[in-house]
Amino acid sequence: MRFIHDSLPQRVRFASGEAREQLAQEIDELGASRAMVIAAPAERPLAERITAGLPIAVEHDDVAPHVPVEVAERARAVAASENVDVLVTVGGGSTTGLAKAVALTSGVPIVAVPTTYAGSEATNVWGLTEGSVKTTGVDPRVLPRAVVYDAELTLSLPIELTVASGLNALAHCIDSLWAPRADPINAAMASEGIQSLASGLPRLVNDPSDLDGRELVLHGAYVSAVAFASAGSGLHHKICHVLGGMFDLPHAQTHAVVLPHVLAFNGSFAPNAEARIAAAFGAPTANEGLRRLREALGSPRALKDYGLPEDGLAAAAAATVPLVPAGNPAPVTEDGLVELLHAAWAGEEPK
Amino acid sequence: MRFIHDSLPQRVRFASGEAREQLAQEIDELGASRAMVIAAPAERPLAERITAGLPIAVEHDDVAPHVPVEVAERARAVAASENVDVLVTVGGGSTTGLAKAVALTSGVPIVAVPTTYAGSEATNVWGLTEGSVKTTGVDPRVLPRAVVYDAELTLSLPIELTVASGLNALAHCIDSLWAPRADPINAAMASEGIQSLASGLPRLVNDPSDLDGRELVLHGAYVSAVAFASAGSGLHHKICHVLGGMFDLPHAQTHAVVLPHVLAFNGSFAPNAEARIAAAFGAPTANEGLRRLREALGSPRALKDYGLPEDGLAAAAAATVPLVPAGNPAPVTEDGLVELLHAAWAGEEPK
Repeated sequence: MRFIHDSLPQRVRFASGEAREQLAQEIDELGASRAMVIAAPAERPLAERITAGLPIAVEHDDVAPHVPVEVAERARAVAASENVDVLVTVGGGSTTGLAKAVALTSGVPIVAVPTTYAGSEATNVWGLTEGSVKTTGVDPRVLPRAVVYDAELTLSLPIELTVASGLNALAHCIDSLWAPRADPINAAMASEGIQSLASGLPRLVNDPSDLDGRELVLHGAYVSAVAFASAGSGLHHKICHVLGGMFDLPHAQTHAVVLPHVLAFNGSFAPNAEARIAAAFGAPTANEGLRRLREALGSPRALKDYGLPEDGLAAAAAATVPLVPAGNPAPVTEDGLVELLHAAWAGEEPK
Repeated sequence: MRFIHDSLPQRVRFASGEAREQLAQEIDELGASRAMVIAAPAERPLAERITAGLPIAVEHDDVAPHVPVEVAERARAVAASENVDVLVTVGGGSTTGLAKAVALTSGVPIVAVPTTYAGSEATNVWGLTEGSVKTTGVDPRVLPRAVVYDAELTLSLPIELTVASGLNALAHCIDSLWAPRADPINAAMASEGIQSLASGLPRLVNDPSDLDGRELVLHGAYVSAVAFASAGSGLHHKICHVLGGMFDLPHAQTHAVVLPHVLAFNGSFAPNAEARIAAAFGAPTANEGLRRLREALGSPRALKDYGLPEDGLAAAAAATVPLVPAGNPAPVTEDGLVELLHAAWAGEEPK
């Protein structure tokens, strides 16, 4: 047991159906008087409903995925010219990400109201895209001061996106157990995340309007983001990053298909993590717990269904090897990765 | 699921045998150049060893339990006249508490090196005693900026004190599950704490010099303090506070005896907490998990052995009723508390 762990300061307000009241209280406690409300056009009606009554200086809906630099610059200019003293976001990762870009250069605090399970609101990581190049960094100013979680806001999230986003959160938990800054504090959050997601997601497949299920998944997504942001990227995220970059595969499906293969690959070399995952699933083994969950969710199985060419596997493996964290539990070779990728490509059971 | 949770900013450096190096790195990163090293006379040789090479402005060993106001004033005067820019503590709760008193009025950051399982280093709670009256409060300035955990420093903690202090930490975990600000983030920390303490403490009874066991208990004590500071005092701590105040009972033994009775009292009304505790113990029920642990530790059983008079139980129950948190899972009546206290007094099995 040897680690350095930084706990980050953040307030979470979790109250279904109370986004408006909780947000008003938080703005009041911050003493803010000129809010910039950031929400994409699709979220505009929702944003207007839950920010009604706030001291709003400006509403901003110029949001784009991956935070292009020019979009960030426009938002920064608006924030400066309107002299705003709080950034209120209503939306998913792109919206939170834009506020982070403004906070990064201005220091204006963020209060985030998430409407998806992306988890960006729980991290001090920012990202900006210039052309096709994404730059990321870590800065305390971009961590939202407070997050208002209202599970009713996620009721309309389509079930396919709910499952994909939930499995992405699950991958955060599992990978955090062997990531470079894995430690038992992150692991405690990962356990909580696995348990909440594994309880909540099957309920939503049965009934997407199950509010208790939505709360479990929202809470699970939050703690998974806390664990992942602290622990960093492990083998799973390195593989998915390479596959996504080389073959433009869909993000969430890639995570869902690859995760059980990485778990099987690393699990027997990481007995503590394996036992922790199994316990969180309430299953005899970690692999079996994940298998049952994927079955209950009708999770995607084969990357060949999403456009991954079989003759690309060797190149992907070669590109991944240098990225693998030094402390990965299982020894990683190019051949081993090809085998793992082939099984994920074909949709075989993980070995 | 409805809560407000504040995560506090703190760095934990956990590395057995490396207190000196980790402390030096932290002081260096803080850019501090005039350290006030606070350690009681008994810890002075240890403090000198692990602070060797630091930029020390002054060493201070005028430490007393419960932080008497006059002791705090003397330490504040030293800090001011020496113009110190960091407070380094080496010791247990009294030592950390004194640094908090200085930080409260000066804002000077604390770096804590704990040598016990008290957990004060993980909280933003300060306490001062004037005569026999203890005042406590919450202030962000008193939360240590960083904590250096070196389990080797706890190897010499006598096994009786280790068990008592470990069961005190366990009470933090369990009570946090139904305390006024109980929430699933605190609960995740509580689960981790129960698991670590239940694994580590029996190892130390078998071999007090088992370093892995010491690490488990030290980590468990840390997360238990994080959970408790965030969740607040529940029924268990209210009972123990009244008993301690009225009859001057020994702190740790009181916690050890009362805890299983409160768990049995509340458990059936708090099925989620019960299931969480059982899972963390790896036992069929929460009560059974705690029973096994207490048996393995030879834990104290009866408050009559520690000076509690049978004819004081009714008064203690009457004094406790108004303090019980409104959200306590089981309904609490004076009669119910008398029954609970009588079982704890007699050393009966909890019902």
